[in-house]
Amino acid sequence: MKTIGIFYKPTLKDIAEKFKKDLLFEGFDVVYCNEKLLNIEVDLTLVLGGDGTFLKAAHKVKNPLVGFKGGRLGFLSSYTLEDFEKFLFDLKENNFVKDRRFFLKVEKFYSLNELLLIKDPTQKMLDIQVFFQDGSFYFHADGLIVSTPTGSTGYSLSLGGPILLPNVSSFVITPVAPQFLASRSIIIPDSEEVLIKLNQKSNLVLDGMGFGKVSEVKIKKSKKKIIILRPKDYDFSKSIKEKLGYGKKFL
Amino acid sequence: MKTIGIFYKPTLKDIAEKFKKDLLFEGFDVVYCNEKLLNIEVDLTLVLGGDGTFLKAAHKVKNPLVGFKGGRLGFLSSYTLEDFEKFLFDLKENNFVKDRRFFLKVEKFYSLNELLLIKDPTQKMLDIQVFFQDGSFYFHADGLIVSTPTGSTGYSLSLGGPILLPNVSSFVITPVAPQFLASRSIIIPDSEEVLIKLNQKSNLVLDGMGFGKVSEVKIKKSKKKIIILRPKDYDFSKSIKEKLGYGKKFL
Repeated sequence: MKTIGIFYKPTLKDIAEKFKKDLLFEGFDVVYCNEKLLNIEVDLTLVLGGDGTFLKAAHKVKNPLVGFKGGRLGFLSSYTLEDFEKFLFDLKENNFVKDRRFFLKVEKFYSLNELLLIKDPTQKMLDIQVFFQDGSFYFHADGLIVSTPTGSTGYSLSLGGPILLPNVSSFVITPVAPQFLASRSIIIPDSEEVLIKLNQKSNLVLDGMGFGKVSEVKIKKSKKKIIILRPKDYDFSKSIKEKLGYGKKFL
Repeated sequence: MKTIGIFYKPTLKDIAEKFKKDLLFEGFDVVYCNEKLLNIEVDLTLVLGGDGTFLKAAHKVKNPLVGFKGGRLGFLSSYTLEDFEKFLFDLKENNFVKDRRFFLKVEKFYSLNELLLIKDPTQKMLDIQVFFQDGSFYFHADGLIVSTPTGSTGYSLSLGGPILLPNVSSFVITPVAPQFLASRSIIIPDSEEVLIKLNQKSNLVLDGMGFGKVSEVKIKKSKKKIIILRPKDYDFSKSIKEKLGYGKKFL
């Protein structure tokens, strides 16, 4: 590992500069990756910011990522900004495990967290049909979300979905404000292709970004993935407990 | 296929006898399997009854099963009692796909649907710790359920859990009446071993049957499985729509 990229949330520019100085001192080449991915190949990209920043970086870079978050851990960050010394130690000792996260492929686009189909505020409710290998479901609802395990702690959770451990090989599908009682989530193997048909064009949103209006989309697991480097003593449940207060002992 | 067993819900004895007569007429040997599994090996067992009867049969026999339910489909039955002619046709044409369902192994016991740890009505709430590969969760709750995909449409669903398609390789864990807001389910790969520790002995219930009181259990996917024969045109989502009214078009 020789060249390290830094992708930072604009408000964390000062800390990015401090990280850069320390890395140069340790003998690494350092480049900032915020604007574009340059022509310089980096071996590893440090991401300074929350999960939103990490998501942006994940769409931009192909090399492994390490996340640093201010305050408490993020779901995608393994270190806090205060942990930089610990990171340097782990880097020198190669004290990492690789945490692979796959993207959804939605037609020709990619999404790390989720696909959301959602009506406009004054649009009528949608008739949504979801087709998979062994059948189909129908929902009359404001929309539908298909989330990866990575996305299951994001908007999918807000919509009532369960938490998928990162190493689960499934998607989770949840209708948004469905009519009648069909509000449960469905877990489907990520080896399946899912076809969704709407009775009227509506908004396609991938990782929070708009991709116009569609009346039909095909979804499958992509070969595209990111690799997050985690310290060997990393504990996934810790970020769930810290951020959500879920599964935590209250004293 | 030469010898066919019949396992029936006691109230369906007359229909079982009609099935037997028809099968004998078609040249098969037929044995009833209700009491014990005899010394006679059967090639296939027909189960007449609902999912409760099917569950009992699943614990008893090792050969493939075909379920027949009165009225509408069950989750485990692929035919209704009225479909016997269609079944005979499928049997002669070998028009089946094999639907494999794995058991949970809970210490030295087996469970097809779920493991439930639950306090007695007047017992204090339990402190429950769930350990898995990448961490642990803690719940202060009346109990906890660990369900297979097969069990996800049963008691796990009543407790707020999602629906897992039968070919999902995961368990779903849901606390029962947890304190604070930790009521979401967790999806965990079925390749993991789960250890559950309680602060006080409480009831272990597997597929609805009591197995005494425990303060600790280890759970993993068992190699033990059942094979359900389904007609090739079987559609899993149909039973969800028929039985739960979930994902169904209301006209």
